[in-house]
Amino acid sequence: MATLKELTQLVLQFRDERDWAQFHNPKDIAVSLTLEAAELLELTQWRSGPELLEHLKKHREELADELADILGWVLVMAHDQGIDLGDAVRKKLKKNAAKYPVEKARGQAKKYTEL
Amino acid sequence: MATLKELTQLVLQFRDERDWAQFHNPKDIAVSLTLEAAELLELTQWRSGPELLEHLKKHREELADELADILGWVLVMAHDQGIDLGDAVRKKLKKNAAKYPVEKARGQAKKYTEL
Amino acid sequence: MATLKELTQLVLQFRDERDWAQFHNPKDIAVSLTLEAAELLELTQWRSGPELLEHLKKHREELADELADILGWVLVMAHDQGIDLGDAVRKKLKKNAAKYPVEKARGQAKKYTEL
Amino acid sequence: MATLKELTQLVLQFRDERDWAQFHNPKDIAVSLTLEAAELLELTQWRSGPELLEHLKKHREELADELADILGWVLVMAHDQGIDLGDAVRKKLKKNAAKYPVEKARGQAKKYTEL
Repeated sequence: MATLKELTQLVLQFRDERDWAQFHNPKDIAVSLTLEAAELLELTQWRSGPELLEHLKKHREELADELADILGWVLVMAHDQGIDLGDAVRKKLKKNAAKYPVEKARGQAKKYTEL
Repeated sequence: MATLKELTQLVLQFRDERDWAQFHNPKDIAVSLTLEAAELLELTQWRSGPELLEHLKKHREELADELADILGWVLVMAHDQGIDLGDAVRKKLKKNAAKYPVEKARGQAKKYTEL
Repeated sequence: MATLKELTQLVLQFRDERDWAQFHNPKDIAVSLTLEAAELLELTQWRSGPELLEHLKKHREELADELADILGWVLVMAHDQGIDLGDAVRKKLKKNAAKYPVEKARGQAKKYTEL
Repeated sequence: MATLKELTQLVLQFRDERDWAQFHNPKDIAVSLTLEAAELLELTQWRSGPELLEHLKKHREELADELADILGWVLVMAHDQGIDLGDAVRKKLKKNAAKYPVEKARGQAKKYTEL
């Protein structure tokens, strides 16, 4: 079972072995994360519904790679900026719960400003 | 200490309480993840160096929120597509290690195609 | 009838009146363009098919605004880097025509690497 | 001198020769535009200042190609949704002028909400 701490150590070890911390300013990390998100998005381009699910099954390794790349940058940014991701997720879910109360949001794909 | 499994359960519980799984096709998840990456990127717009670090310190909660949102979508996508993120990160780091061998990549901010 | 030159002059005039050229390094311009692309993408989030077309009709002004913002950054970047956009589009279409020859690409939503 | 109308006709002709209008729903167009924006952004990854300018000079054709791709999707989306881009840019600049009045915004890289 993977903990965030354990995965963070793996990506930091990879970075340190290459002496790459010097390049990891938050702007280029955010740029890199955005580029990896775009690579994930590209897997869905021109496809939807069952055809997309089929495509993702065929490109399962690529999908896993893109998710790993994104997660890697999330872990690096959180580490460098001293953010506890477990706390961050819990706090954000509480905020989202206030914006999207169950009774109003249930079964609705609307932004909270439209509920 | 947060495990990926534990955080995945939290985001899925949030989703199920609102009956939102029906909207979570992989295309819209990838779109949503990209939008959250853009919100993170926006925190770095027009700033760099020490000024950016200062800005991120002042907007620390916003930074944590954006990272949490991105991580949330990574967890949802991985869950829905049956991908083990711990495995995915380990495998991807091995691939990256082959593309960026320590002796060649050390201290170089270059793409593997340029090394 | 709008020419690229005319629209470029309008966005540069807007910039110069505010003395903003000093902030317009290519990295922040590319970041800004990406953020505006994300705002356009957000208009399509959680919607597709006829429901999306309906949504875009209702948010027509917002759609026009996002396209204008993206185009504005394209014009600024092209100006600053000395690129003639008319030439660029014509040259790129020729490259695309070589990658996607009519006889192979006709009616196919595939990447050229898959044709 | 290139007009938007003329460039729009070129990209539509390219599309029609390949019978691709059938794939061009607004969601996939927005996705495609975002992916091209990311390719532009990638040209700026890990570089800034004079080093980035040097890099863009060396990759001038790639830069022109990415700008052309982005502009192409802007033209297609505007055409399909019946938006006059010249009008859109003029109207958006007026809105921006109201948000960023010269006397307040001059020489300031701040969001209008912070002015």
